[in-house]
Amino acid sequence: MAKELKELTSREENYAQWYNDLVIKADLAENSAVRGCMVIKPYGYAIWEKMQRQLDDMFKETGHINAYFPLFIPKSFLSREADHVEGFAKECAVVTHYRLKTNPDGTGVVVDPEAKLEEELIVRPTSETIIWSTYKNWIQSYRDLPILCNQWANVVRWEMRTRLFLRTAEFLWQEGHTAHATEEEALEEARKMLDVYADFAEKYMAVPVIKGIKSANERFAGAVETFCIEALMQDGKSLQAGTSHFLGQNFAKAFDVQFIDQENKLQYVWATSWGVSTRLIGALIMAHSDNNGLVLPPKLAPFQVVIVPIYKNDEQRNAISEKVATIIAQLKAIGISVKYDDSNNRKPGWKFAEYELKGVPVRLAIGARDLENGTIEVMRRDTLKKETVTMEGIELYVKDLLEDIQTNIYKKALDFRTSVTREVDSYDEFKVEIEKGGFLMCHWDGTSETEERIKQETKATIRCIPLNGDKTPGKCIVTGKPSAQRVVFARNY
Amino acid sequence: MAKELKELTSREENYAQWYNDLVIKADLAENSAVRGCMVIKPYGYAIWEKMQRQLDDMFKETGHINAYFPLFIPKSFLSREADHVEGFAKECAVVTHYRLKTNPDGTGVVVDPEAKLEEELIVRPTSETIIWSTYKNWIQSYRDLPILCNQWANVVRWEMRTRLFLRTAEFLWQEGHTAHATEEEALEEARKMLDVYADFAEKYMAVPVIKGIKSANERFAGAVETFCIEALMQDGKSLQAGTSHFLGQNFAKAFDVQFIDQENKLQYVWATSWGVSTRLIGALIMAHSDNNGLVLPPKLAPFQVVIVPIYKNDEQRNAISEKVATIIAQLKAIGISVKYDDSNNRKPGWKFAEYELKGVPVRLAIGARDLENGTIEVMRRDTLKKETVTMEGIELYVKDLLEDIQTNIYKKALDFRTSVTREVDSYDEFKVEIEKGGFLMCHWDGTSETEERIKQETKATIRCIPLNGDKTPGKCIVTGKPSAQRVVFARNY
Repeated sequence: MAKELKELTSREENYAQWYNDLVIKADLAENSAVRGCMVIKPYGYAIWEKMQRQLDDMFKETGHINAYFPLFIPKSFLSREADHVEGFAKECAVVTHYRLKTNPDGTGVVVDPEAKLEEELIVRPTSETIIWSTYKNWIQSYRDLPILCNQWANVVRWEMRTRLFLRTAEFLWQEGHTAHATEEEALEEARKMLDVYADFAEKYMAVPVIKGIKSANERFAGAVETFCIEALMQDGKSLQAGTSHFLGQNFAKAFDVQFIDQENKLQYVWATSWGVSTRLIGALIMAHSDNNGLVLPPKLAPFQVVIVPIYKNDEQRNAISEKVATIIAQLKAIGISVKYDDSNNRKPGWKFAEYELKGVPVRLAIGARDLENGTIEVMRRDTLKKETVTMEGIELYVKDLLEDIQTNIYKKALDFRTSVTREVDSYDEFKVEIEKGGFLMCHWDGTSETEERIKQETKATIRCIPLNGDKTPGKCIVTGKPSAQRVVFARNY
Repeated sequence: MAKELKELTSREENYAQWYNDLVIKADLAENSAVRGCMVIKPYGYAIWEKMQRQLDDMFKETGHINAYFPLFIPKSFLSREADHVEGFAKECAVVTHYRLKTNPDGTGVVVDPEAKLEEELIVRPTSETIIWSTYKNWIQSYRDLPILCNQWANVVRWEMRTRLFLRTAEFLWQEGHTAHATEEEALEEARKMLDVYADFAEKYMAVPVIKGIKSANERFAGAVETFCIEALMQDGKSLQAGTSHFLGQNFAKAFDVQFIDQENKLQYVWATSWGVSTRLIGALIMAHSDNNGLVLPPKLAPFQVVIVPIYKNDEQRNAISEKVATIIAQLKAIGISVKYDDSNNRKPGWKFAEYELKGVPVRLAIGARDLENGTIEVMRRDTLKKETVTMEGIELYVKDLLEDIQTNIYKKALDFRTSVTREVDSYDEFKVEIEKGGFLMCHWDGTSETEERIKQETKATIRCIPLNGDKTPGKCIVTGKPSAQRVVFARNY
């Protein structure tokens, strides 16, 4: 067994350590010299590129266009929306100067005190304020609406406790910012993008999600309503995988963005914003991977198939490579990405372990005897099952197998979620059950006080008020007061 | 004539104003509330996306992979390479604090003095230092080499005088950073990427470029040799469109990056870096556009064809739209992007002017009579020539036309460059000629002093020492000392 695998902590032993080991050893990301900022390594970035390409296509299909707004936000802009500044002020990177100069003592450089900015600039933690200050100039009449912009960008939130992908000071994301003439249209947009996120999570990441509404405590700073998708990780903790906010007229009022409607009346514009980030890579890892390494859904794997030749001499290697060239061409012709690893400096066993660690969905191995027999060994990463099949038609076999893997890992995640989702009807039971992890479906009286008490006493929060499913009323598990429907409680990332 | 066009300053009247008007009126970009930072509007960003997609494909074809490194650079890192810090220290955005707090007097927020960083962070002006501090951990042996990484990112250089796209405090770019075992391999990489840039400029942007080497005065801060492509704008000024640097072992030494070579000896790693930025959009505009607006090369136009219906009533409009649907399907089937503008609130004349302003390569107009006759009016943006052709086979006609436009605007730019490139053999003549713009091919004695004197006296600099072309030696136009070959002088952006 390869060195890397030996050192991968098992999930059972220490889930947090397993996650961190995996991110490092699978070459996805690492911590940088700058506190809380990560380096996204090529293999990790390749997953992000796959996610980006797919999401970008989905945004464009729903009528959105990309633009780019400044990295910096004047400090005064942040203050314009009261809840917004309250939410972000405590974790802002602040630019105060625009020049360095040589240290008078000749050692290195120091900040030039002469080059102090009149107004400090905040490195964007999110872009509502700079974008709505811009939209003010773009919007005069109902004819200028809707505006359906998205931005791919980096943002900075000065988190004190960081974890690779899950919570980092700088992260990559997309943020959609839309402007509408009516409340209904803005609400419809926020719901539509929630559906796009849920589709992406389920069909591409193979991660089942619950679509819901955030309670007031968990709402985005500045939103009227926050919609979210919540995913369950293998350790029974929940992860917020995407949010879509109905912002009402809050930012339009903060930046005085009004338009003349069809009746020639001046009105404030309605807004949404929605985003997903490199955090999704963390979700992807934690939802599917195992003690051998990553398990990647075929639709997001940087390469879907790896081919490893098994040979004793150059003659065998050349004969195998020749055959493999044909197979690669056949796979590529039907849109399957493939890597051929015929490097000489590693043994097949090392390569097998390495590509298991990296979560490549399908491994093909070909030896001299396979050439004679016209066979090939196929291993699927999700179940680790091997079989030997005929080379003839291998590309279609692999195509079906990739589809099956995509379906299977989604089903496995869904089955797991189902198995740890249960209804709980008393607070005593809740305190016992929450220790076991999973989603607890409970009645709640709708107050922040009750939610806060539960959080203090159990570390569990309301992940969302589900949009679909059981709407039977009941009584709050803590106060016994009326509850309109069960909500989802869990501990979370 | 549409309002926007009336307000577009002509090139002859004021070239700088024409450029700025065009960027604003064609909806490419605008200045933001943050000094020197621009908002790239959807139409401008769509051009950048086209550039990105093409360049990214070319980088991947040449074996490169993408990664992402932190936005912030510890101040001490910048100081490690002496020339590098000298080159960038004077234009750095500096993060000094990581938190805001409510102003004690209750008005807005202020920087929390308690949240001062121990070491200031620089917003990356370029990433050599943070990347080489990372590569130190990635490289131990010759087996770890080469590393061929690229990053798509935003960078900040606090320029005092900014112009949309050409020079902004924040801009978008890609930066390749490669690590090699030998000097030869690194030099070959730097030259290879220069060729990629030149190919991209000529085949996609339709902008002819001169490939060359920078003189010491114009070299990248920290490079041993800077290769560049230089393009000529319509006002006779030169624009550096891309650079590729051979960094020698400078950054490896600054960050102590050594590897064990095949003979088991410890050696410093050899490096390159190379980049192009959103500045290319500025070059694209200034190379081709005219007094009617943008002229975009078909390969980078957000949409290549616009179709405008001409109708008197809904019945005509519907009949035209039905026919147009077929044409759109035919165009899309052969990979041509098309927009159909059947909006009711603007007249055809307004639309014609608008799409000329936006540089859409081909305009199709269809009226009721065209429907009867089976004809369609085609206008090509580069020459503004119109003709009426049969609808039958229109998609192939348009395909050929787009190729012809791509070729023609390249040829036009090349002819212009040829017409304003001349050999000058005396300094007196030089002083007269430089006022007329264009490239002056002159002998130079190879010293920084002479170059500096010419710059002081004429505002012209050496744009590059051309890699190809005439290598006949001669005598310096200023000092009469020996010169190995003519070099390119020009005023520049």
